[in-house]
Amino acid sequence: MQNDAQFMARALELARMGRFTTTPNPNVGCVLVRDGIIVGEGYHHKAGEPHAEVHALRMAGEQAKGATAYVTLEPCSHHGRTPPCADALVNAGVVRVIAAMQDPNPEVAGRGLYRLQQAGIAVEHGLMMVEAEAVNRGFFKRMRTGFPYLQLKLAASLDGKTAMASGESQWITSVDSRRDVQQFRAQSSAILSTSATVLADNPSLNVRWSELNDEIQQYYPQDALRQPVRIILDRHNRLTPDLKLFSLPGDIWLVRSQKGHENWPAHVEQLIVPEHNGGLDLVVLMMQLGRRQINTIWTEAGPTIAGALLQAGLVDELVLYLAPKLLGDGAMGLCKLPGLERLSQALQFKLHDVQQTGDDLRLRLFTRS
Amino acid sequence: MQNDAQFMARALELARMGRFTTTPNPNVGCVLVRDGIIVGEGYHHKAGEPHAEVHALRMAGEQAKGATAYVTLEPCSHHGRTPPCADALVNAGVVRVIAAMQDPNPEVAGRGLYRLQQAGIAVEHGLMMVEAEAVNRGFFKRMRTGFPYLQLKLAASLDGKTAMASGESQWITSVDSRRDVQQFRAQSSAILSTSATVLADNPSLNVRWSELNDEIQQYYPQDALRQPVRIILDRHNRLTPDLKLFSLPGDIWLVRSQKGHENWPAHVEQLIVPEHNGGLDLVVLMMQLGRRQINTIWTEAGPTIAGALLQAGLVDELVLYLAPKLLGDGAMGLCKLPGLERLSQALQFKLHDVQQTGDDLRLRLFTRS
Repeated sequence: MQNDAQFMARALELARMGRFTTTPNPNVGCVLVRDGIIVGEGYHHKAGEPHAEVHALRMAGEQAKGATAYVTLEPCSHHGRTPPCADALVNAGVVRVIAAMQDPNPEVAGRGLYRLQQAGIAVEHGLMMVEAEAVNRGFFKRMRTGFPYLQLKLAASLDGKTAMASGESQWITSVDSRRDVQQFRAQSSAILSTSATVLADNPSLNVRWSELNDEIQQYYPQDALRQPVRIILDRHNRLTPDLKLFSLPGDIWLVRSQKGHENWPAHVEQLIVPEHNGGLDLVVLMMQLGRRQINTIWTEAGPTIAGALLQAGLVDELVLYLAPKLLGDGAMGLCKLPGLERLSQALQFKLHDVQQTGDDLRLRLFTRS
Repeated sequence: MQNDAQFMARALELARMGRFTTTPNPNVGCVLVRDGIIVGEGYHHKAGEPHAEVHALRMAGEQAKGATAYVTLEPCSHHGRTPPCADALVNAGVVRVIAAMQDPNPEVAGRGLYRLQQAGIAVEHGLMMVEAEAVNRGFFKRMRTGFPYLQLKLAASLDGKTAMASGESQWITSVDSRRDVQQFRAQSSAILSTSATVLADNPSLNVRWSELNDEIQQYYPQDALRQPVRIILDRHNRLTPDLKLFSLPGDIWLVRSQKGHENWPAHVEQLIVPEHNGGLDLVVLMMQLGRRQINTIWTEAGPTIAGALLQAGLVDELVLYLAPKLLGDGAMGLCKLPGLERLSQALQFKLHDVQQTGDDLRLRLFTRS
């Protein structure tokens, strides 16, 4: 069934088009095929709006009767904000459903496929599962563990330096690398940073639509722009409402060990987290963020927090931009890993892919499990 | 003339087969074509032995008459250890010669092509010049500047660390990376290291034929194995004849600021170089090595010498092996660059290629000119 893979590949491509907007929902794509021809296709755009299957069925109309549905995730069986997709497929007369994988969401977890089977539909799953996992790393991790999927962005010279001894750090990487970062931010449920970073650079930490590439802009119009929640670690309550960050659209959650008394605008919330080992308890924070339906976190922080996240086992992926420069031993390092004294204790990763971003190189690495 | 490029590509492929053995001569390949068919081909194997053109002419025999010769470098016009190839081509009745580039060797430098032209042969040059440059970076640099082409090998974790604070460093990179190093060593005229490295690890710093890959072993038999000269910086005359290095085949040049009184075996020579800025004068050393016909140097040294070579502008290429690990800020850095305090002073490189070596990544970068 060579065609099955082709149609599923198209469904996955559609699913990915929702990656900037569906959070906290998963990305899902659906293709309806009759007599070897695509009669309908669609993807989930946004929580609360129709699921992928509904878009595809609307497009197919009467032609859905007798069709095969390729879906990147098991169709839902429960009444959420929209009615169950399994029922919609049955009612439309679809005769075969191929799902890339089961939905790990405990409210679905096989019930969708079961419901289809009970209605006499031929059901299969497991086609292109690896690719389907990649489309929803964050949603799946949260469903399976309660924790968000955390990406740690690092940017350094070839010798692992992020700043000169003086603190000078703008810019080590190229314009292209910084634009590439915009895509990762845009895909994330939240951006995590620290008050140290905010106070040093007074950054926006937002998504700038104009810096997304042309291909993305085509299916992600400016008026659909979603700003990830900006989560700022601010243990000593050092941030004040006059910083640029607070004047820009999008929610901000300040993570503190106790509430401060500033008069915060409505889009700023204070999350209270206990202290642990002389810092905020990052594990407790991540559990809180999981409960708040944060699927994916894009982290831009300094060497201390980078190291603390790594040592707490909270990082799933490194995204490392390497600039083709040497800064020398006197410059500042990439991450602090106190207590790591033997080579056998080194943190190990597995290279996922390498890409050029302008003059730089971007490495994506996964934590070795 | 699409075929011209095909035949030149074959000639370049042949030229590369000599890269382990021709030093101090350049790598040269030659293909003879008559009526669109290759009638002879060959490459230069070893200084003092026949040049590429002679091998190709021998293979072609009578069929060389009326043929076109594709050579990766201008045929020589002078009597060296072998008679001029330009004459051999004329005598064999070759009617057309296409050279990838002129020979920068001042003893040739256009005279070979001129001689062919005078004999009534149609002559062209400049086909696939970029590729032809790459086959002889060392020879060309020495001919043009008097200095050897220097490759600096670096091996580090993702955060640019080469060893733990304790000095523990075996092994940060993978077995595959270390085997890959063998190829670079084997291609080099010389391997450069330091007494600090030799005293710390008691290494062999040689080429181990069994660690070269199968493809290379096919055309580079074990009995043709050439050991690069091992050049060891030993400013304080710390090395002694009992170290492993000295018991293995191959010449060793000890670079010192004054002769020591050890009873060195015949294959060990002491090169005297003045001191400069609290170290050996590396620029003077490189000029000496150029005069000694060293085309290419493969450097394996610690952060101090790596930095000194870089800051003296003596490095042409970085070969950086990155292991997918983090060692943290406490570990030892890749290179010392004293005085580099501002980002604008950073040493800049241009990425040439990236390759996976086992779990690691190998980056080749050229010095930005």
